[in-house]
Amino acid sequence: MAARNRGYFDAKGVFALNLVSSPGSGKTSLLERTLKDLKGKIPFYVIEGDQQTLNDANRIAALDVPVIQINTGKGCHLESDMIHDAVKKLNIANDSVLMIENVGNLVCPSMFNLGEHKRVVIVSTTEGDDKPIKYPDMFHTSDICIINKIDLVPYLDTNIEELKKNALQVNPELVFFEVSATKGTGMEQWCEWLESQAKLVPEEH
Amino acid sequence: MAARNRGYFDAKGVFALNLVSSPGSGKTSLLERTLKDLKGKIPFYVIEGDQQTLNDANRIAALDVPVIQINTGKGCHLESDMIHDAVKKLNIANDSVLMIENVGNLVCPSMFNLGEHKRVVIVSTTEGDDKPIKYPDMFHTSDICIINKIDLVPYLDTNIEELKKNALQVNPELVFFEVSATKGTGMEQWCEWLESQAKLVPEEH
Repeated sequence: MAARNRGYFDAKGVFALNLVSSPGSGKTSLLERTLKDLKGKIPFYVIEGDQQTLNDANRIAALDVPVIQINTGKGCHLESDMIHDAVKKLNIANDSVLMIENVGNLVCPSMFNLGEHKRVVIVSTTEGDDKPIKYPDMFHTSDICIINKIDLVPYLDTNIEELKKNALQVNPELVFFEVSATKGTGMEQWCEWLESQAKLVPEEH
Repeated sequence: MAARNRGYFDAKGVFALNLVSSPGSGKTSLLERTLKDLKGKIPFYVIEGDQQTLNDANRIAALDVPVIQINTGKGCHLESDMIHDAVKKLNIANDSVLMIENVGNLVCPSMFNLGEHKRVVIVSTTEGDDKPIKYPDMFHTSDICIINKIDLVPYLDTNIEELKKNALQVNPELVFFEVSATKGTGMEQWCEWLESQAKLVPEEH
């Protein structure tokens, strides 16, 4: 089903990203900021995953972006069939970008391909610099690593260079962006990358 | 097997806690601080769970506390049979306290009873105030909620009262401690509680 999703995205020129992270690393805040910063430049669609609540979908809907919330109940990750159903309901336009925010979990979602073009792992500076080696599967299977909450570094013991070194040890291909989604720092580089990638669909992925 | 673990703990007067949280919420730092603050007062044993690395066990061993690291590989939680094996290897003394640090995951470990007397969910102020309602199972099945990193509150949008309200909505019986494991704030109350509970084993649990 993941392959089928991927084929569907390719046919429509939809660039699909799977955002994964621990709970509370700032996935939704990053998404909100990205949607605001790229408003009018890229047509976005969003699928939100959480065990419970419509909170995240409500935050995205407030930005006038089409969104579907999937509540997994006891489930710890999104699966490709859920994405298949949600994509049909969203009625996604050609040449758009689909942002899938997975359930906050640095372990299980690593094992489930949703058909995305790129997997983006978000890690907060507050989580410390050792997470990539303690939870290697997620960093190994991701293409992009966004280091969020860099505004808090002055108040923490976290060493960003050590964090990157640990992540590269697990996955030498990882591409990094350092941002503060709430303060807006570093968002230009991330948004530029997103714009450039969206235009490449589907040939280059 | 969880029941068998529990019987074993009860027979030996061992007070067993299962520490659960998101990755990077500060479980190991809290544990280190607790072991230091109660050194000489309570005999501790520790079981560390992580997908990979011996990092956490090394941190605990540096404090001269007997510890076993369990690496779950692709696994997302500790299970009762792993605890059974580890407890035998630790050769736990009577009237001691066993701290089990679970894999960092706010979802899956909620479904696996290890035989513990109390489940302790640690939530960092940096994770925001909505985690209890987005990941209700973990808060519903826990007895204690430790709110860690309270020293960072001035730099965050997190509302501690809202966080507690959300947690109580999911589990009205939750008992809270507010601490900064790195700064030491609030550790006295948590350590006093731990001492009082350790003396009650096994009758009161």
